[in-house]
Amino acid sequence: MTQDTPPGPDMEAFLADRRLQDYKGARALVTGGLGFIGSNTVRALNALGARAVVLDSMAEGHGANRFNLRGIEDAVDVRIADIRDQAAVAAALEGCDFVFSIAGLGSHLESLEDPFLDLDVNGRGTLTVLEAARKHAPGARVVYSGTRSEYGRIQSRPVSETHPLLPTESNSADKALGTLYHIAYHAAHGMHTVSLRLTNTYGPRMLVQHYRQGFINWFVRLAVEGATFRLYGDGSQVRDLVYVDDTVRALLLAAVVPEAAGQVMNVGSGRPASLKEIAETLVEIAGRGAIEYVPFPEDARRIEIGDYVADVSRIKDTLGWSPTVSLREGLERSVRYYERYREHYW
Amino acid sequence: MTQDTPPGPDMEAFLADRRLQDYKGARALVTGGLGFIGSNTVRALNALGARAVVLDSMAEGHGANRFNLRGIEDAVDVRIADIRDQAAVAAALEGCDFVFSIAGLGSHLESLEDPFLDLDVNGRGTLTVLEAARKHAPGARVVYSGTRSEYGRIQSRPVSETHPLLPTESNSADKALGTLYHIAYHAAHGMHTVSLRLTNTYGPRMLVQHYRQGFINWFVRLAVEGATFRLYGDGSQVRDLVYVDDTVRALLLAAVVPEAAGQVMNVGSGRPASLKEIAETLVEIAGRGAIEYVPFPEDARRIEIGDYVADVSRIKDTLGWSPTVSLREGLERSVRYYERYREHYW
Repeated sequence: MTQDTPPGPDMEAFLADRRLQDYKGARALVTGGLGFIGSNTVRALNALGARAVVLDSMAEGHGANRFNLRGIEDAVDVRIADIRDQAAVAAALEGCDFVFSIAGLGSHLESLEDPFLDLDVNGRGTLTVLEAARKHAPGARVVYSGTRSEYGRIQSRPVSETHPLLPTESNSADKALGTLYHIAYHAAHGMHTVSLRLTNTYGPRMLVQHYRQGFINWFVRLAVEGATFRLYGDGSQVRDLVYVDDTVRALLLAAVVPEAAGQVMNVGSGRPASLKEIAETLVEIAGRGAIEYVPFPEDARRIEIGDYVADVSRIKDTLGWSPTVSLREGLERSVRYYERYREHYW
Repeated sequence: MTQDTPPGPDMEAFLADRRLQDYKGARALVTGGLGFIGSNTVRALNALGARAVVLDSMAEGHGANRFNLRGIEDAVDVRIADIRDQAAVAAALEGCDFVFSIAGLGSHLESLEDPFLDLDVNGRGTLTVLEAARKHAPGARVVYSGTRSEYGRIQSRPVSETHPLLPTESNSADKALGTLYHIAYHAAHGMHTVSLRLTNTYGPRMLVQHYRQGFINWFVRLAVEGATFRLYGDGSQVRDLVYVDDTVRALLLAAVVPEAAGQVMNVGSGRPASLKEIAETLVEIAGRGAIEYVPFPEDARRIEIGDYVADVSRIKDTLGWSPTVSLREGLERSVRYYERYREHYW
């Protein structure tokens, strides 16, 4: 076991932004705070001087990992409970100035197997957090982690926030519901609610045990193992990747910038990368591994959303946000993290 | 008590359309089949030679009314059960060729009071019908009654299907989820699923006991009572009204036209009418009544969606559908129906 504190987000860009000083001394609830994006958010909040409260169900196989908060356990109020538990959510919200609603299910394939569970967690659970915030912390600013897959099958690129919602499976539909609730709660109750539609986020602390939560975590694992990448078709499918530090900074800004209230904003790099290019970069960083091309499996083809590149003009205009970590740099940091802390994630 | 069979939809336009002959001898489930749009759908199906199965929870205050099927009771298989009841839904679906998924909650104000119930019925209930169709009647064609309020606050007019979803309360968000599920089930499972976003539908058999399900039912009641219309502001807010016969014909066409699969389509007249104009027409038809102008109440202003006029080019192109009943004619038929059958609706 390593005894040091593993690195959290590089705080340079956070500390340079005066708007983020609003977090000093504040109290912030992070649902899913033991998971990938949640724990990185908690680490950034902690570094900014906020008191973080974590609500996490530690559901098996969904990325919660106690090691993600290693080194800052004493500074964080961790509560093991489900977002569908109204009493636990209400108690966790007490006195909170900010809510980061990150907990949820994210597997497209699993949602096909059990769409009811997916709806219950992502629909009813997300609504439980929002309703509890309205009742018990009405002044709190709430930021929801939506997803680019709400757009579903892509009709035109780059994809702006006005792209129609054409989900290809249940998970994208119930995640879209979460976004719609945040729009509605601003309109109906005047709350500061925001939904960020995240593109593929990657970096330290993501789940790498299976590939059901997207390709990029699996790719990083393959790189660390020096294994073979299996790309569907010719690997020319395009994705838009954002390193987790940049994603976390967007989440934090969305809560403190008044103009964000009631908005939906894409978080993306705006720079397309093909699966082939990403795999090649990872092989290069790892110094080993291979790439193989295989035919598209039928079930994957059905729910393939098509190339994705985000139009990020709205978030640039509203939050003054743009990503600072290049793809090469982000992949490098990710591979090094898992090489070092592999025992906690495999 | 009247002993005759009250008139159902005028079948002339239905019988003239050869595509609707597909219903002869078919079996069709109508959820919410004792309610307004549902019962009119059942009557049209019956007149076309289909065997209709009704699933209706008869929830208090949501429009279910046994009188709506008066005269055709023996031809219809009516089952009193909730769409959230998986076993009842599965049993009702047995052998069905068509499913009209119409049951649901439709009150914006009530959804603000209990958003969880709203989600449970409109989200989980609608999903229960879809999942049961996939498992127990995989070849069935499923048509969902969505709503124009999924668009929420209107950004530009006329409103096409690509208008962003900006719901102003929970009901519009969970109704939008129903539409998204139907898009997703076509993509993921290859089912013939369609969502029609209905504008304000009016006509015989609508609930007229309260005004929580929209203004038009209440307006018709006021006309029959010769009462005073209270319009918010100057009454210049614009709505798009469709007479129920036309709405039912759109629902029936959406299930039999192959090109409709996986689509979302607006059902609207495309012809704007102001609340003032509608009220004046009703006063004229009733031969009595008055109009009064009152300030906009704050809670109504918050969730007011703005003027609405549907862009109906997609449904015209895809189904060859356009409305046949004029506003004047539809309001006239509505007032006459309630004048005659008032005792069953007040």
